[in-house]
Amino acid sequence: MLNNDERIDQLFSLDIKIIQSADVFSFSADAVLLADFARLPQTGEIVDLCAGNGAVSLFMTPRTNANITAIEIQPRLADMAQRSVVLNDLQKQINVICDDLKNADQYVKKDSADVVVCNPPYFKVTQQSVKNPNQYLAIARHELKTDLKTVVKKMSDLLKTNGRGVMVHRPDRFLEICDVFRANQLEPKRVRFVYPKANKPANMVLIEATKVGKPGGLQLLPPLVIYNEQGDYLPEMKGKLYIND
Amino acid sequence: MLNNDERIDQLFSLDIKIIQSADVFSFSADAVLLADFARLPQTGEIVDLCAGNGAVSLFMTPRTNANITAIEIQPRLADMAQRSVVLNDLQKQINVICDDLKNADQYVKKDSADVVVCNPPYFKVTQQSVKNPNQYLAIARHELKTDLKTVVKKMSDLLKTNGRGVMVHRPDRFLEICDVFRANQLEPKRVRFVYPKANKPANMVLIEATKVGKPGGLQLLPPLVIYNEQGDYLPEMKGKLYIND
Repeated sequence: MLNNDERIDQLFSLDIKIIQSADVFSFSADAVLLADFARLPQTGEIVDLCAGNGAVSLFMTPRTNANITAIEIQPRLADMAQRSVVLNDLQKQINVICDDLKNADQYVKKDSADVVVCNPPYFKVTQQSVKNPNQYLAIARHELKTDLKTVVKKMSDLLKTNGRGVMVHRPDRFLEICDVFRANQLEPKRVRFVYPKANKPANMVLIEATKVGKPGGLQLLPPLVIYNEQGDYLPEMKGKLYIND
Repeated sequence: MLNNDERIDQLFSLDIKIIQSADVFSFSADAVLLADFARLPQTGEIVDLCAGNGAVSLFMTPRTNANITAIEIQPRLADMAQRSVVLNDLQKQINVICDDLKNADQYVKKDSADVVVCNPPYFKVTQQSVKNPNQYLAIARHELKTDLKTVVKKMSDLLKTNGRGVMVHRPDRFLEICDVFRANQLEPKRVRFVYPKANKPANMVLIEATKVGKPGGLQLLPPLVIYNEQGDYLPEMKGKLYIND
């Protein structure tokens, strides 16, 4: 069941096993935090865009019975995701699709999703990203196959009115993200900044937007600080993570 | 020198005395944090819009030799500010002007300021704010005499290219503030959210924008948390405040 480069990690906090590969793709704190931040319906439709090895979809399952459609463009990653779904016996809940997310409405009806989550590539394409020798990681991290506008437009297309789009991204692009969200009828409503340490700038932001939401009333949730001064996980993060390593 | 309702408070951390009045206007943590957050030039021109009783201007003086023009529309508050300036022997550095900020360029040349700071009224005008029996406080807190667009436009007018506009405001209006800033050639570059406690949503935001700054590259500074669980000031805030009370 495992390729040579692969291993099985376990997120003990959620009792989920996940197939990982340092060579191809491993989930990181971003996926754990996105899954944890998203407010989920008990039933209905959830879509996971840029699903990678399925980490976000898998980590949401303990909190919802909704159908989850996980869309990933890279066959190698989608295959890992599918095998993790089987490993956790979640075939009835998670449907892994290997396709470009721009075709997502071939699998999920427009205006039908309650929640769309997305952990997209963070970085704009540069000379360096094109030349990255590891194309798996390059595609996951850089906007080579998709970009912010394409992802957010599809997120909005799939969501029903008052549905929630939820994204994890980098703070240096926060204003651009809010612009693109609002240009696509998604009004940011809940934001949480994530700081590596209490005295360091944020290096991650979690954003929830409501489709056709009323402008204003943005809520800035409490700061999430990952490590203490000594580099150990602080209690909140420790509770969310608990991976074996 | 003091009216009946007035008292003198001291910000011991800065060795500044300030005339306050619970009936008319008292500075709060917002003013201390704005003055502290602003990066100041050693010399040049600083403007303080919506100056109130002069708290922000006074609190900046230990860190700069620049000229400070403090503009306040309410004569009663401008008078308190002027007397505090005398009390601290800062007449050579701070020029208190009692006028509507829309006339600010009668006192400071357009495109000349290095830094413009502003602690504006936070709240949009409602039925209630119009009816507030204390008009001093109503004008300081609600957009009765000015509003966000007017303030930011004037901030931009006064600033030189690459000058910095610095504002304290409420997080629920953060996206609106960024929109208005950018519509006036002010690109947000440094942002710090302020949280009353580590597990509470932010209730204040400090924003620094650069005039004609390049879009992108927003820096999210470390969270500033005011109180611990027991309601005592945490060390950073304690260091900044140290008022007598």
